[in-house]
Amino acid sequence: MAQPAAMPVGAASVAVRQASLREHNLALVLRHIATAARPPSRADLATITGLTRATVSALVDDLITGRLLSEVVRTPRSGAGRPALGLTLAGHGPVGLGLEINVDYLAAVLVDLPGAVRHRAVRRIDLRPVPPAEALALVAELITEAGTEADRQDLVLAGTALAVPGLVSATGVVRLAPNLGWRDVDVPALLGGHPMLSGRGLSVDNEANLAALGELHAGPPDSANFIYISGEVGIGAGIVLHGTLFRGARGWSGELGHVPVHPDGRPCRCGGLGCLEQYAGQEAILAGAGLTDGPTPLARLIEAAGRDEPTARRALVEAATALGVAIAGVINLLDVDTVVLGGVYAPLAGWLGPPVEAEIRRRVLTAAWSPVTVRPALLGGDGAAVGAAGSVVRTVLEQPARWLARPLR
Amino acid sequence: MAQPAAMPVGAASVAVRQASLREHNLALVLRHIATAARPPSRADLATITGLTRATVSALVDDLITGRLLSEVVRTPRSGAGRPALGLTLAGHGPVGLGLEINVDYLAAVLVDLPGAVRHRAVRRIDLRPVPPAEALALVAELITEAGTEADRQDLVLAGTALAVPGLVSATGVVRLAPNLGWRDVDVPALLGGHPMLSGRGLSVDNEANLAALGELHAGPPDSANFIYISGEVGIGAGIVLHGTLFRGARGWSGELGHVPVHPDGRPCRCGGLGCLEQYAGQEAILAGAGLTDGPTPLARLIEAAGRDEPTARRALVEAATALGVAIAGVINLLDVDTVVLGGVYAPLAGWLGPPVEAEIRRRVLTAAWSPVTVRPALLGGDGAAVGAAGSVVRTVLEQPARWLARPLR
Repeated sequence: MAQPAAMPVGAASVAVRQASLREHNLALVLRHIATAARPPSRADLATITGLTRATVSALVDDLITGRLLSEVVRTPRSGAGRPALGLTLAGHGPVGLGLEINVDYLAAVLVDLPGAVRHRAVRRIDLRPVPPAEALALVAELITEAGTEADRQDLVLAGTALAVPGLVSATGVVRLAPNLGWRDVDVPALLGGHPMLSGRGLSVDNEANLAALGELHAGPPDSANFIYISGEVGIGAGIVLHGTLFRGARGWSGELGHVPVHPDGRPCRCGGLGCLEQYAGQEAILAGAGLTDGPTPLARLIEAAGRDEPTARRALVEAATALGVAIAGVINLLDVDTVVLGGVYAPLAGWLGPPVEAEIRRRVLTAAWSPVTVRPALLGGDGAAVGAAGSVVRTVLEQPARWLARPLR
Repeated sequence: MAQPAAMPVGAASVAVRQASLREHNLALVLRHIATAARPPSRADLATITGLTRATVSALVDDLITGRLLSEVVRTPRSGAGRPALGLTLAGHGPVGLGLEINVDYLAAVLVDLPGAVRHRAVRRIDLRPVPPAEALALVAELITEAGTEADRQDLVLAGTALAVPGLVSATGVVRLAPNLGWRDVDVPALLGGHPMLSGRGLSVDNEANLAALGELHAGPPDSANFIYISGEVGIGAGIVLHGTLFRGARGWSGELGHVPVHPDGRPCRCGGLGCLEQYAGQEAILAGAGLTDGPTPLARLIEAAGRDEPTARRALVEAATALGVAIAGVINLLDVDTVVLGGVYAPLAGWLGPPVEAEIRRRVLTAAWSPVTVRPALLGGDGAAVGAAGSVVRTVLEQPARWLARPLR
């Protein structure tokens, strides 16, 4: 009946075979190192995991050879003893490529195993008039650039995740992205042939979901229940409950932008009336502030709000009030304790926060004794791309054996 | 490494000790019998579970002695052979007592192990002017009556669950029930001393949550993702996702009645404006139909709607439209595929359904390729009480060893 101490057995692994023991233990060692407060030594790891020191050393050697771990001198040399070597995640090994297609920009980032952003590129472009194949050709350019940059830094591309502002099927087909005008766009078919992607895996997901995942891993350890709101031209939400992304019954949860806030109000691109997007989306805010023409409207909005320009401030209050109405509905339904303002909402959080909080106080039944925190996203404007890259990196951390067994290129 | 075939090991049971093996196997045998298409024999159970026939027989004997199983003759005697005996859940053993306090009625039901309702009592009374202690004294009368009825039928009260239209703490304190005017009512302290409850356990939960659980177990096996909407004076929701009741981060999910549908609309008892309750709650419907005075207004509403009386029909369409707006928001957020209309909505579902469906088609982004079913609740108006009783019964089925070890009374 006894289990080897180092191998946690989950419901999905009732019949764990001996052959997979090494896989489990590699991941276990890596997990301890990733979450340790200071770089543990091999001896520390043996104590923590209950594995023998010889086993730990063999696993650690494999992980170092595979460029997943680095050894660092942990304590300064004092007297004649050897310095203790601590183990940390390697910054010179695999990186995840995170891509984002949004309505008015494209983004690409490389994130390494310790979580540092090693490369970042953003292209401002209005993609609404651009056909999907052409938009994906622009994405392919970003991939080439990122791949070249990874080579230059001697990093290894572990995989790619693409964030899109729409509904994505399990096979990566964008079923609907209303603000892009996309419908049934088979992204893996159009992009998967890129030489830097082939064989490395390409996943496609909703941008708010990926940003929420990024926020979950970047955020404080107690941020287990929150709604991440991605304010762009469209408005999406990633819902994290008990530390897990909630995808809904069919994977299409979080369409906050189409929650009705004024049932008989403005028509929406989706065919509905009075959707939140029409009151709190980026374009509604800019139109309200009289900033639809000219370059860098968002920067000008922030500047105008900063100097208390009445039209800009009023536009932000109006948007935030609509946002607060929708958020109050979400909290009444889902009982989350934190609202994370992401996308363009992040730099506007100082102005959007108070009216949102006022609506929550006014409309959430439990608000009096169960306070709700409203805060800007930690990852900023390219949170979806960073979250996408992070999702690739976490796959490597969770399945190191797979990484070690990859065909070398 | 091998696990005994009959003991599924979950994440929570890594270090299962030999002593708990019997508990696991008792529950396992009971689960197979509860879900079997026809009453299995002891030999069938040995084959299914992989346990020896001697072990199965010992477990089954204990379960029969404990009044959890009955033996039935499965095939007619043919020729000289002994008849095969099949095993079914016992209808003469434990029953769960389900209670409901709502704004204008109290209900009590007894449900047995196979799920049959063995006793049912409903008292119509407007509880708004009644202080909580007095309301609970009326509930105590229902408990006494149900206990007497259980004795008369030679059933054993296994435990009690109480459904309330409000927010309940983990310890059973009703933190807030706006339509009852209750705040911080310690139900276990006020009710737990009842002689028929002492030592048997009393749990308190939100009525929509309990009704949703009842619906989950009464419904078709594929009903894994739905929102159960409890239409009463207030409106609550029980959210079932992947076959599990979703309670929210702090246990206070599902406050659908306070989702804003007209942000600047009618003031609500909760302090908000334009809450769904003000447009689709029972009182809003009856007021719209001009049926606030006189007895049995709901029956008169159904009768008026049945003969196409224009005021009644218009009131129902208006309520259903508001309900549909709020439901569209829920589906956009949570991506559930089924909406169950419960409480007073169940008998009105024929009139409420089509406008609700129209709002879903109009406002849910995925509605075009991902149809949503709107249907009346299977359990009818006392679904919360039946669900409450069912929750007690399921505890017995999941932990039969605890039941068998109870002190006999």
